[in-house]
Amino acid sequence: MKNPTAAILIIGNEILSGRTQDVNVQFIAKRLADLGIKLEEARVVPDIPARIIGAVNELRAAYTCVFTTGGIGPTHDDITSECIAAAFGVPWVLHEETAAIMRERWGEDVNDARLRMATMPQGAVPIKNEASIAPGFTIGNVHVMAGVPRIMQSMFLALEQELPRGERIEMRAVYGIGVLEGSIAAGLGEIQDRFPQVDVGSYPFKREDKWGVTLVAKGSDIPAIEAATAEATDLIAAQGVAPVQGEPD
Amino acid sequence: MKNPTAAILIIGNEILSGRTQDVNVQFIAKRLADLGIKLEEARVVPDIPARIIGAVNELRAAYTCVFTTGGIGPTHDDITSECIAAAFGVPWVLHEETAAIMRERWGEDVNDARLRMATMPQGAVPIKNEASIAPGFTIGNVHVMAGVPRIMQSMFLALEQELPRGERIEMRAVYGIGVLEGSIAAGLGEIQDRFPQVDVGSYPFKREDKWGVTLVAKGSDIPAIEAATAEATDLIAAQGVAPVQGEPD
Repeated sequence: MKNPTAAILIIGNEILSGRTQDVNVQFIAKRLADLGIKLEEARVVPDIPARIIGAVNELRAAYTCVFTTGGIGPTHDDITSECIAAAFGVPWVLHEETAAIMRERWGEDVNDARLRMATMPQGAVPIKNEASIAPGFTIGNVHVMAGVPRIMQSMFLALEQELPRGERIEMRAVYGIGVLEGSIAAGLGEIQDRFPQVDVGSYPFKREDKWGVTLVAKGSDIPAIEAATAEATDLIAAQGVAPVQGEPD
Repeated sequence: MKNPTAAILIIGNEILSGRTQDVNVQFIAKRLADLGIKLEEARVVPDIPARIIGAVNELRAAYTCVFTTGGIGPTHDDITSECIAAAFGVPWVLHEETAAIMRERWGEDVNDARLRMATMPQGAVPIKNEASIAPGFTIGNVHVMAGVPRIMQSMFLALEQELPRGERIEMRAVYGIGVLEGSIAAGLGEIQDRFPQVDVGSYPFKREDKWGVTLVAKGSDIPAIEAATAEATDLIAAQGVAPVQGEPD
């Protein structure tokens, strides 16, 4: 079975300026792996309409689903929602139900800026969530979420049951401190060749001034990833190093 | 003066699987802002040749310079170097000077896997660095670096003097705890309108269960960003909140 695919589009000058460390990609990536959705791309673009519209249209044509983060607040630099409407070629209109919820909750504080957060591409379905009255929304295969991590996470969890499912992607890891990648590369390549259905990766790390390497086997064929991990464990042991299951801290 | 532009291409299954939190984008982004190079895109693609080659060719045509991270080690999953050669349509050949340095340093431990790290697109110039004998390399406007943050950083610093320069992009910030974005959005939009040469951004945050907002003015016209920040400070004060210069911790 072919797993559904996904891309993440981060709309965020604050990431490109270095002001903010993105943490949304990792959160979404882990959840997608659990759902069996293959994350195939992540992209960060600035708050410029042509860049957002172009990226949305490119990604939604290429992947089963697209997740955007950022740019759906009430200020002048929050332009994602209008841009999604333009990308889909639909009007950007007040979502009456959302506006009513905001008016009920906020009363007189519902100004024009806040009503922008109730304005969506025509046909969009709000992503109601526990973190914020202002919802994200889904249109077609594009899921539009906030950039603030706690709000984004709440939106993603609210959305999860609507997403397609594939075979869960599992990961096993083993590491050895003092093992150098260059010394095990040939043996590791042979393991990859013996398990074409497993994605075998090698990641060096440094701990207390000593290099080590983590070997990772990833895929949906559990017996195969466990067999590949067993061979990777032997490969580390053959270097005279005690292999440790899992990831180094 | 128009600043040079840049993109970052992260080659990394480990980012897309959620296994690893990327920290390279933020490091590079901050350094580029100091150099006056405008980072306009960051992209993460999997370890698949067609994806790497396609992205390299797209990005190098669109930006003044491209920085890649990841995939230049000695193992079977390190395929960046071959892919860059393919993207440029040049042979992938042993760089004799680099091979000689490795042989001198590593002696008999220089196996085929390690010599892959001395193999580069024809015409590439090594990025020698203090963190690793195996260098990165530059070909055309593409700078190819390691994925391990400490090695990448060492390569970037070694490279910095070769990069183009623009006007340094400065940032000023002011925040208010208890200020809601929706309450200041109209006023902030007016500040942006008065300072078109400044990039004015608004970023909500939550601290100890209280929402606040950070207002950021960014650009290379220092008097303008300082004037815009002064107005943003007044906007926060007008909400009955004491404005604080800088970013919240």
